[in-house]
Amino acid sequence: MKVGLIGSGFMGQAHVFGFATAQRVFNMPITFEMTTMADANLAMAERAKEAFGFSKATGDWRDLINDPDIDIIDITAPNALHKEMALAAIAAGKHVYCEKPLAVLATDALEMAKAAEAAGVKTQVGFNYLMNPMLSLAREMIASGKLGEIYSYRGVHAEDYMADPNGPFTFRHDPAGGGALADIGSHALATAEYLLGPIVQVMGQSKTLIPRRRDRYGDMRDVTVDDVTHCFAEFSNGATGSVEANWCATGRTMQHDFEVYGSKGSLYFSQERFNELYYFNGSDTAGLRGFRRIEAGPDHPPYGNFCVAPGHQIGFNDLKAIEINGFANAIAGNISEPFNFRAGWRIQSLVEAIQKSSTENIWVDTEVMA
Amino acid sequence: MKVGLIGSGFMGQAHVFGFATAQRVFNMPITFEMTTMADANLAMAERAKEAFGFSKATGDWRDLINDPDIDIIDITAPNALHKEMALAAIAAGKHVYCEKPLAVLATDALEMAKAAEAAGVKTQVGFNYLMNPMLSLAREMIASGKLGEIYSYRGVHAEDYMADPNGPFTFRHDPAGGGALADIGSHALATAEYLLGPIVQVMGQSKTLIPRRRDRYGDMRDVTVDDVTHCFAEFSNGATGSVEANWCATGRTMQHDFEVYGSKGSLYFSQERFNELYYFNGSDTAGLRGFRRIEAGPDHPPYGNFCVAPGHQIGFNDLKAIEINGFANAIAGNISEPFNFRAGWRIQSLVEAIQKSSTENIWVDTEVMA
Amino acid sequence: MKVGLIGSGFMGQAHVFGFATAQRVFNMPITFEMTTMADANLAMAERAKEAFGFSKATGDWRDLINDPDIDIIDITAPNALHKEMALAAIAAGKHVYCEKPLAVLATDALEMAKAAEAAGVKTQVGFNYLMNPMLSLAREMIASGKLGEIYSYRGVHAEDYMADPNGPFTFRHDPAGGGALADIGSHALATAEYLLGPIVQVMGQSKTLIPRRRDRYGDMRDVTVDDVTHCFAEFSNGATGSVEANWCATGRTMQHDFEVYGSKGSLYFSQERFNELYYFNGSDTAGLRGFRRIEAGPDHPPYGNFCVAPGHQIGFNDLKAIEINGFANAIAGNISEPFNFRAGWRIQSLVEAIQKSSTENIWVDTEVMA
Amino acid sequence: MKVGLIGSGFMGQAHVFGFATAQRVFNMPITFEMTTMADANLAMAERAKEAFGFSKATGDWRDLINDPDIDIIDITAPNALHKEMALAAIAAGKHVYCEKPLAVLATDALEMAKAAEAAGVKTQVGFNYLMNPMLSLAREMIASGKLGEIYSYRGVHAEDYMADPNGPFTFRHDPAGGGALADIGSHALATAEYLLGPIVQVMGQSKTLIPRRRDRYGDMRDVTVDDVTHCFAEFSNGATGSVEANWCATGRTMQHDFEVYGSKGSLYFSQERFNELYYFNGSDTAGLRGFRRIEAGPDHPPYGNFCVAPGHQIGFNDLKAIEINGFANAIAGNISEPFNFRAGWRIQSLVEAIQKSSTENIWVDTEVMA
Repeated sequence: MKVGLIGSGFMGQAHVFGFATAQRVFNMPITFEMTTMADANLAMAERAKEAFGFSKATGDWRDLINDPDIDIIDITAPNALHKEMALAAIAAGKHVYCEKPLAVLATDALEMAKAAEAAGVKTQVGFNYLMNPMLSLAREMIASGKLGEIYSYRGVHAEDYMADPNGPFTFRHDPAGGGALADIGSHALATAEYLLGPIVQVMGQSKTLIPRRRDRYGDMRDVTVDDVTHCFAEFSNGATGSVEANWCATGRTMQHDFEVYGSKGSLYFSQERFNELYYFNGSDTAGLRGFRRIEAGPDHPPYGNFCVAPGHQIGFNDLKAIEINGFANAIAGNISEPFNFRAGWRIQSLVEAIQKSSTENIWVDTEVMA
Repeated sequence: MKVGLIGSGFMGQAHVFGFATAQRVFNMPITFEMTTMADANLAMAERAKEAFGFSKATGDWRDLINDPDIDIIDITAPNALHKEMALAAIAAGKHVYCEKPLAVLATDALEMAKAAEAAGVKTQVGFNYLMNPMLSLAREMIASGKLGEIYSYRGVHAEDYMADPNGPFTFRHDPAGGGALADIGSHALATAEYLLGPIVQVMGQSKTLIPRRRDRYGDMRDVTVDDVTHCFAEFSNGATGSVEANWCATGRTMQHDFEVYGSKGSLYFSQERFNELYYFNGSDTAGLRGFRRIEAGPDHPPYGNFCVAPGHQIGFNDLKAIEINGFANAIAGNISEPFNFRAGWRIQSLVEAIQKSSTENIWVDTEVMA
Repeated sequence: MKVGLIGSGFMGQAHVFGFATAQRVFNMPITFEMTTMADANLAMAERAKEAFGFSKATGDWRDLINDPDIDIIDITAPNALHKEMALAAIAAGKHVYCEKPLAVLATDALEMAKAAEAAGVKTQVGFNYLMNPMLSLAREMIASGKLGEIYSYRGVHAEDYMADPNGPFTFRHDPAGGGALADIGSHALATAEYLLGPIVQVMGQSKTLIPRRRDRYGDMRDVTVDDVTHCFAEFSNGATGSVEANWCATGRTMQHDFEVYGSKGSLYFSQERFNELYYFNGSDTAGLRGFRRIEAGPDHPPYGNFCVAPGHQIGFNDLKAIEINGFANAIAGNISEPFNFRAGWRIQSLVEAIQKSSTENIWVDTEVMA
Repeated sequence: MKVGLIGSGFMGQAHVFGFATAQRVFNMPITFEMTTMADANLAMAERAKEAFGFSKATGDWRDLINDPDIDIIDITAPNALHKEMALAAIAAGKHVYCEKPLAVLATDALEMAKAAEAAGVKTQVGFNYLMNPMLSLAREMIASGKLGEIYSYRGVHAEDYMADPNGPFTFRHDPAGGGALADIGSHALATAEYLLGPIVQVMGQSKTLIPRRRDRYGDMRDVTVDDVTHCFAEFSNGATGSVEANWCATGRTMQHDFEVYGSKGSLYFSQERFNELYYFNGSDTAGLRGFRRIEAGPDHPPYGNFCVAPGHQIGFNDLKAIEINGFANAIAGNISEPFNFRAGWRIQSLVEAIQKSSTENIWVDTEVMA
């Protein structure tokens, strides 16, 4: 299948790496061919074409939509453009792989999800932290009852890329879709629901820590989006929890962490060391109990596709390859989509529910949101 | 000065160890003599007297109050008795050292604080985690601006002593003063304010995970106190934070942890390894930055009183000794009381504010509470 | 340039992944084309050709040597065949990339190195742990004097793949080139010299822990190779150290660790978390000192080629890609070979010196060995 | 029983703390009374008497020997004086508690051990790291076969108190009994034999890193003692191991660490976190295995004497209290001496065997040394 990629930034590059790796690592039911590179202008697209090994380049993403040879549109363009691009791709009958956040507003995301479902095309949103074999393991352990009844959850996604008070006003500070919660809290929410199932109620508190930043024209701009958001989350399985999004956590580069406590056992995890999962087994002998460090290995598929020996570790780009393999298998009909547009809409809905809760100081129901 | 101790349980024993150690370790302005042991009945008191090396024993705590030789009343009796005992001691002009929680209700605690202030006696509540040299260091680093502007705080106190759903209904499940928040969340709140200063607003969420437990008579009892409480906390210094109390955290024995993020640096700490403090210095050379593990040593007073070499580590009972040294110096007029009844009342007030917030689903102001 | 690969096992696969990734990640001066796959028989080669995306397959590795279109021979065949294959490739004027160990005997390795030097072809031996950006950082820190005078070194490579006493007798137990020291101790030695420079003297102690194992024919065989080897190492820079190789370290999957102590600072590292390096800076303020966890990021080239954000982590296969990029740049004449046949010979020589030392109970000089 | 203490430095103070704590924490068969303080001169002794709460002081240690009321002589004087003091005490029929090293030479230590045995008095040498409940646990796990056949051992004791090349020449640099091996390597050796049983053969390598230091008179002195010693150790149980002593390990304050690998499981430990023991159980389910962090708690006697709840942690001075309780029980005849003069001699003998090995470059037999 032929892939047209829109956007050549950080995520565009990660997608290219992911496709390249997936092809080698997995025995995929579909062969992907990186055909056409689209970017904001032809010069950028040409540069990326060369760097990434595409056949063609264009400065107009609509060329990809109109090209009948292209089967899959891969969108890593700015968030505000996702909707238009994805709807056009869906209308043209193409499968769509879109970076997160799926759209600026949940209503847009839902429109996109419904369009894809109506058209029968397959979709994938880039929530690649979920593709980690150790997260699959955690999810299975929880689902199989190894932890007993799930009591509580503590999740966080904290980094420090906005911690400098003299840092510039960027597109991420734009009230339309910006803020720590939307940008990285979305990952924390996705992980929470991936592991424990639906969140049914949220109470949020958002705070802007650095109220004014200078934009690229030198003007001071008011920042209205959140730098930190805390939230309480009630889960449908009865567990209670909290989730934090924080992009001013000085010294943290990838604190995508969780702790899950159950009646029979517990888990904790940090994305800073994402080839490890810590497990406490309450039924271990008294006096010899303790949290164990489980290291990723061939017992944790698809780690073994990358390396036959334990302890060697997979990297961030490998998570992207796993995501692409999942998408390939979904297109081939072997599995349901690992994280489709409806799932992407779900995360947007949670983000908006927390924002509403924070603004209005009320609990917001998140059980039924479609 | 002569000390009368009420109660010979876990905490009574820890106090005795603390006094014994403090005498040797510190050059205290006051010499304490462990005179009389009081317990619920004479037999228990006699046993404790022998074990702990007291001169006298009594089954009636009022004997201590009435003994003019006794200068200090040390209360480690059940929480519900604290008020009556402390007020009697204060009325008799004695200094009072009381285990936490100071009282069942904040109003009681305030009455006790006012009585002590009026009588001019010195008081101390047992919040010994605060006595850790590494917490003093953290507080000083924050106060001196080493972390810059404080952005956010994450605090937790989690253990697992109530995680077993078949565990019995105990006095800690009694609605009068019981629950995870009151029992151990109080420690997390004390640490939060010790480090960052006053909390001005809270939003809480309390949850009972195990709704029924069997009492010692074999009857099933409804549990109405919280097993887990999450809370948002706004600080007067502008920081935003969260605090969690959890006594069903399977596998955790002493997760009294915090993380503090500032514009120039950050700290994190775990009571599980309380001789260590982790520090990120944002002004370290790029590419060579990272959280440092600072180990307790003579540079962190009063560690050096226990051991002249770094890395040897102090223990839990040593924290008690530091607390007692502080109390001795407060009695001698050298310093203000490290954690007096008013401070104990403050923590009770925060607990009640969070409970109210949780019940009524509203933010509760905690700035002025007297 | 066209690549012919010999061998489709664990390492063959890792090489294929490495070439695929390197092409995308680096702006390499040379484009590699995976042309022909050779394996022990045609059927195996055909399977690997399909799986790995080669154009041709052959059951005779000499076909690769004889193919004038092939520029690079990549050898991941059994160790005993390396010499014959490499010498043939060199004779045919091809560049050679060979997995470790370069040869069974150091004399063979030297013969190979000399042949390559005489022929003017470029060579690379697969010591990919050295390709880690955090090891480059460590080496630079040591070389630049950040640690002051280097006092001592502690290195280990321990895994547990031979810990089961009922595990079979394998080719790795063959006295010709087998044993823990040759198999994984070679990595520990390579890291030691990469960081500190030449080892000038060694004293070794080798031990066979499981003296008999059953071979695949069901016969019990005596094991004469080492399961554990300890060694003392004196470095030309005056440092003293130790190195351990251990393939019976139950529970260890990748304990390729080192500690370096200098007069001004120290480092420690574990391959179990190879995106981290711990650094103690002796000139940090007293009371605030401690080992820092430096996380891999764009400040540590070539991490930034894989990901523009810190904390995302590279994986084992990415190390292979870095190795291949280095080889490409060496072929293009941009840099000297990162780890050529002479370096491979050096490691073999150290292994043999330690073996000789262990057998004869004498210190063995390793300063001049050619 | 009445105790006379000689020496009021770091270790004298630690002993006083230990006695005070032991009295409260343990139900000891013997009550100790700290009677007389002896130091190098009367003024020092008087100061210590006041600080430590003794009844009497003397500037002549022989007064303690001659005092018929004193039952136990506790020696924390300079190493060179241990022998004369201990022999005098033994001759006077007193029990002797002596800090390590027991004597300057092993022959002296043996003479002291034999004298005590002949006199029938009880002796104790201060190897308090062995008193850690987690070490008792480790020893029991090894002895009971939980780890299967013991394969290998890695031990180290590294600190940095001599890492500064400008640090002064001290009594620890005196060839008579000085050096890293004698000073702290002795601890590493004691732990090794405590856990695995007798070492039967050693090969050592000692190195002086900083060859000249200025003494207190301002003169440069040659340093001939070791700054770092590495050693191979063969154990009578068939295990092979290594031990390192290093007092120039910049950044390390208490790296008294070990790793033990067995056929069924493994352990590792660091004195930097001495309330923890890491355990790998090879029979845990595949895919869920990993090293567990066992935290000290009431399941690990005598932790429960200090605190009834797990996770609270004991400190360095508490280890001294455990040592004293053991000595009390040995005096009472309840147990054999935990670490008597013969055991102290054993460690001295190992130290000398390693020194001899290092000097002569030969393996030295350590199986039978009396």
